[in-house]
Amino acid sequence: MVSREQHDRMANAIRFLSMDAVEKANSGHPGLPMGCADIATVLFTRFLKFDPKAPHWADRDRFILSAGHGSMLLYSLLYLTGYEDMTIDDIKNFRQLGARTAGHPEYGHAAGIETTTGPLGQGIANSVGFALGERIMNAAFGNDLVDHYTYVLCGDGCLMEGVSQEAISLAGHLKLNKLIVFWDNNNISIDGPVSLADNTDQVARFQASGWNATHIDGMDPEAIAYAIEAARHSDKPTMIACKTTIGFGAPTKAGTNKAHGSPLGAEEIAGARKFFNWSDAPFEIPADVLAAWREAGKAGSKPRAEWEGRLAKSDKKAEFERRMDGKLLPGLDKVIADYKKKLAADKPKVATRKSSEMALEVINGFLPETIGGSADLTGSNNTKTSQTKNITPDDYGQRYVHYGIREHGMAAAMSGLTLHGGIIPYGGTFMCFTDYARPSMRLASLMGIRSIYVMTHDSIGLGEDGPTHQPVEHLAALRAIPNHNVFRPADATETAECWQLALENQKTPSTLALTRQNLPALRTEFVAENLCAKGAYELASAEGGEAEVSIFATGSEVEIALGARKLLQEKGHPTRVVSVPCFELFFAQDKAYREKILGKARVKVGIEAAIRQGWDEIIGTEGIFVGMTGFGASGTIEQLYPHFGITAEAAAKAAQARLAGK
Amino acid sequence: MVSREQHDRMANAIRFLSMDAVEKANSGHPGLPMGCADIATVLFTRFLKFDPKAPHWADRDRFILSAGHGSMLLYSLLYLTGYEDMTIDDIKNFRQLGARTAGHPEYGHAAGIETTTGPLGQGIANSVGFALGERIMNAAFGNDLVDHYTYVLCGDGCLMEGVSQEAISLAGHLKLNKLIVFWDNNNISIDGPVSLADNTDQVARFQASGWNATHIDGMDPEAIAYAIEAARHSDKPTMIACKTTIGFGAPTKAGTNKAHGSPLGAEEIAGARKFFNWSDAPFEIPADVLAAWREAGKAGSKPRAEWEGRLAKSDKKAEFERRMDGKLLPGLDKVIADYKKKLAADKPKVATRKSSEMALEVINGFLPETIGGSADLTGSNNTKTSQTKNITPDDYGQRYVHYGIREHGMAAAMSGLTLHGGIIPYGGTFMCFTDYARPSMRLASLMGIRSIYVMTHDSIGLGEDGPTHQPVEHLAALRAIPNHNVFRPADATETAECWQLALENQKTPSTLALTRQNLPALRTEFVAENLCAKGAYELASAEGGEAEVSIFATGSEVEIALGARKLLQEKGHPTRVVSVPCFELFFAQDKAYREKILGKARVKVGIEAAIRQGWDEIIGTEGIFVGMTGFGASGTIEQLYPHFGITAEAAAKAAQARLAGK
Repeated sequence: MVSREQHDRMANAIRFLSMDAVEKANSGHPGLPMGCADIATVLFTRFLKFDPKAPHWADRDRFILSAGHGSMLLYSLLYLTGYEDMTIDDIKNFRQLGARTAGHPEYGHAAGIETTTGPLGQGIANSVGFALGERIMNAAFGNDLVDHYTYVLCGDGCLMEGVSQEAISLAGHLKLNKLIVFWDNNNISIDGPVSLADNTDQVARFQASGWNATHIDGMDPEAIAYAIEAARHSDKPTMIACKTTIGFGAPTKAGTNKAHGSPLGAEEIAGARKFFNWSDAPFEIPADVLAAWREAGKAGSKPRAEWEGRLAKSDKKAEFERRMDGKLLPGLDKVIADYKKKLAADKPKVATRKSSEMALEVINGFLPETIGGSADLTGSNNTKTSQTKNITPDDYGQRYVHYGIREHGMAAAMSGLTLHGGIIPYGGTFMCFTDYARPSMRLASLMGIRSIYVMTHDSIGLGEDGPTHQPVEHLAALRAIPNHNVFRPADATETAECWQLALENQKTPSTLALTRQNLPALRTEFVAENLCAKGAYELASAEGGEAEVSIFATGSEVEIALGARKLLQEKGHPTRVVSVPCFELFFAQDKAYREKILGKARVKVGIEAAIRQGWDEIIGTEGIFVGMTGFGASGTIEQLYPHFGITAEAAAKAAQARLAGK
Repeated sequence: MVSREQHDRMANAIRFLSMDAVEKANSGHPGLPMGCADIATVLFTRFLKFDPKAPHWADRDRFILSAGHGSMLLYSLLYLTGYEDMTIDDIKNFRQLGARTAGHPEYGHAAGIETTTGPLGQGIANSVGFALGERIMNAAFGNDLVDHYTYVLCGDGCLMEGVSQEAISLAGHLKLNKLIVFWDNNNISIDGPVSLADNTDQVARFQASGWNATHIDGMDPEAIAYAIEAARHSDKPTMIACKTTIGFGAPTKAGTNKAHGSPLGAEEIAGARKFFNWSDAPFEIPADVLAAWREAGKAGSKPRAEWEGRLAKSDKKAEFERRMDGKLLPGLDKVIADYKKKLAADKPKVATRKSSEMALEVINGFLPETIGGSADLTGSNNTKTSQTKNITPDDYGQRYVHYGIREHGMAAAMSGLTLHGGIIPYGGTFMCFTDYARPSMRLASLMGIRSIYVMTHDSIGLGEDGPTHQPVEHLAALRAIPNHNVFRPADATETAECWQLALENQKTPSTLALTRQNLPALRTEFVAENLCAKGAYELASAEGGEAEVSIFATGSEVEIALGARKLLQEKGHPTRVVSVPCFELFFAQDKAYREKILGKARVKVGIEAAIRQGWDEIIGTEGIFVGMTGFGASGTIEQLYPHFGITAEAAAKAAQARLAGK
């Protein structure tokens, strides 16, 4: 038990590292670390289960800094508690190019950064996935191996973002009682007092969503400790509203928005040194304080060693480690190959949303780590299989999450599930509503984690629901996100192959764009190779000579491409068809492969029921594009495709005209 | 006052039109209209101020169907109350291509559809703008001309979406007491009981955000009327939780998710006819019921005529009509021209976010209808000018909204402000966070309304905040949205011109992508013409012969393009530079202009600190692109541009290599 004086000095170490690093970088956010140093000190010295010498310890407590702009709080804690990859030089290099200590915490830059935060609301929404992941893995592996808490520090901004409502209502529903959120209730936002824009009673709001919530003095260590202790023994998630002073200690800027997002300046820092009676030079931590912090950092080594002992003795050791490492069970290849053989024989004419369900039936039967879900479109997204029963507060040992009408919260929770480890989450909604989920999908791409988004109703082919529900720009918009694979399979076999690729790509999230409407089987011969793995391949070759026309298409439009080929062949124009299930993988192939697939036909045609943007790289700026030029319309699918000119006849006619030199 | 029996028959008319239309279309959502028919009947027959003969009456109450899938409720009401452009044939053509009666209500398809809804949460979030717009216009024009309510009908889905929290907390903060929300509390979502995914106490949640909220029996007309009456005399916004039965009257599907989103089938409908003792054929409304509805539709004609009288006598008539028509004050041209003259003389070296503020200072001084705001980044977005003081519950007569950290809610509220009429809203956040606002920005584009998004910090040029805050794919992703102008001005003069274009385009929303970093004045000679109006123009011509190189660039990279040109000219390569402030406007020009601007130089170079997607249309697939290929990094701007190879030297070198045939 540390004395109050020792606590204060330990907390002040965070405050000074933060102000000094921001000052040196001449950029950053000193206010939050200074206001929340007490919370962090109590949490890290008395409660948090972690071991800086084994930072990836699977059963560690997770600490999520949802208010990511306060990154210096986290970096200070990692340095002070003795994480080996966070040195004082890293602190001094805060916000410099190549430093671990990026402006906002970046997952993968240093151990102890559990998720990338900064865009507000994301961390608290991720944390629902972390806390649910803990319960799921606990159900699978027992208390001996999985029994930890998820702590979150969030600010006013996180709670004003809508995604926080999706997160807290989902966490309350699932009774994630090991989720504990500190709200840095400092009354200040960037523009000034929070009351400029918000008067929400946050405690009442959380209570309305099934949480414990309570107000405390967030700078009183004993009040903080008492609240955490109570939270740890509750049957609900807990929100602790911590009254703090932003930039605490800065003589004139404390308690104002001037302490939020800019260096305090030499004068304020000098004043703070005086206020805290802290005479040490920038980046110098008094030996006794550093020693106390390092000692606190050692507290986890014994429980960690005990846990290692339990793991060593467990008959679930190998499976636990495999899952936490994110390695797939060996043999998925064969399972998929067998399934593809069956498809080649059955030749099912089904929507790709249905063939996704069929593939999932096989995958979920083989891999225990997949956890499915949908944002209240289960029957439409076809995300539920025989193996996936509902996860409920009474049974976390199941494999399906009813995420509710919360696309954004779903995607954020999926990131948390992935980051927790042991789980491959997939979740569905309509393709059009990727717009709602986009901020979290982007962060998954930036982090390089394996979340799989099952996005059905992927074009005007959904019909009568109309342009509000018909994606036209979403394929392009998703392809624009770096490190994000967008798969648009053309039949059941391609769907199976794309699912395999999504599972195998551990460092890249995937979106599967799937149809509402039925599609014929196009891959009617079994091929062991995953033809989708190179992103594009020749599905039908030209007959009767060198190809005059190459038609490139994705998903539901591959059938149309084959129809156009038939018409062109009948007119004596040798025509080939290339299926392009994944642009990203195709562009990653070597030049020889790309050139082979692009081919040398005089006329190139692209067909996709979406906008052209991004297609020039395949068909060239002179290529013919058959697709959408604006929003869709409400009507039957039989009306819409001809209405928008996306037909085999239109494609063939355009190619013929071009061949004729028109 | 209608009798209970008459009320029931009027409500049943909605129910049968809805089930019959869905049945005929073989597609649609009968459950909501059947459950909410009583609410709608009470509202439209006893409270709603409207006149079907003058559907655009500026002082009508607004009715927003946030649960847009229940579109047949709205279409039924419009037909029954006698809107001339909603005939029984329109009802029969529900969901058919070209019909007014699209799957979800589409703004512009028929009078009485106040906003496009369907994507959940959007209507309730729009409604905050509608209700705020009423208060703003009331402050400007007085009770005689502006004094109406905004009613919203939303479902469980709307309330689970995070944007609803942003909306209700903003509305509560602003004390929008003329906003009245009905929640169709039917306990059913698509996947089954709402309790599968949510247990929120919605009444407590709204109360926590400063609303009145109360539970009622949503199928008891007197309870509904009493609740509305109470809500109309409150000093807070009101949410009425209306307990209803989804698909009320369907013998086996009522109260289940089977009534939600599919035709009920002949048997259920026959059962409902029996249940309601309704013997009329599909689409046939008993004469007495239709007469009663038409009579109700006439109630507004007298108050409307009185209002017309007040307007005719008002000395504000011309200005009120100008604003409601969305017409700009004559003379903006001259105001902008004068300002451009000053800029040509001053040659300010400022960030475009600053030059946006300077342009706004001029615009806000001239146009009283602009209403500014920011999602808590006022000082960073530079959205506040000397004319825009804070709108507060005590003073709606001001011109600035602190939207709070609610990008999505802001964009949705802006749509409501625009749709209300009389207001041109602009609102700011960081460009990267367009991802949060995207669902509402898309709908604004689909509706074709003039909202202006001020998106600053538009590239890696923002520096140390790092990749979570650095847009790289956002320009491409926004350009992908149909009917959305993305402006990226290169200096203060272009910024002024782009602002003018954003204001003049009444049918297209605009995004202004603006820098954090300072940029030199590039347009140093006054030109009266708005050079940005054609989307691209030659800023610097080739010297010493025909251009060998054409460099195309936007925003902050135009300076780099000019630097590259200088280097190439020095090496003897005549080089021209084209500034491309708006792709959309450029692609809309005739072929002659486009070809002239694209030019015939052997080498084309594009420079933009963003991904290449979309650029091939300008520089061709063989063109050299100097930009980003992945996410950014945390570092100073001085580090980042060279790190990612976005420099004049790199561009010149690449062009030289290409000229040399490498």
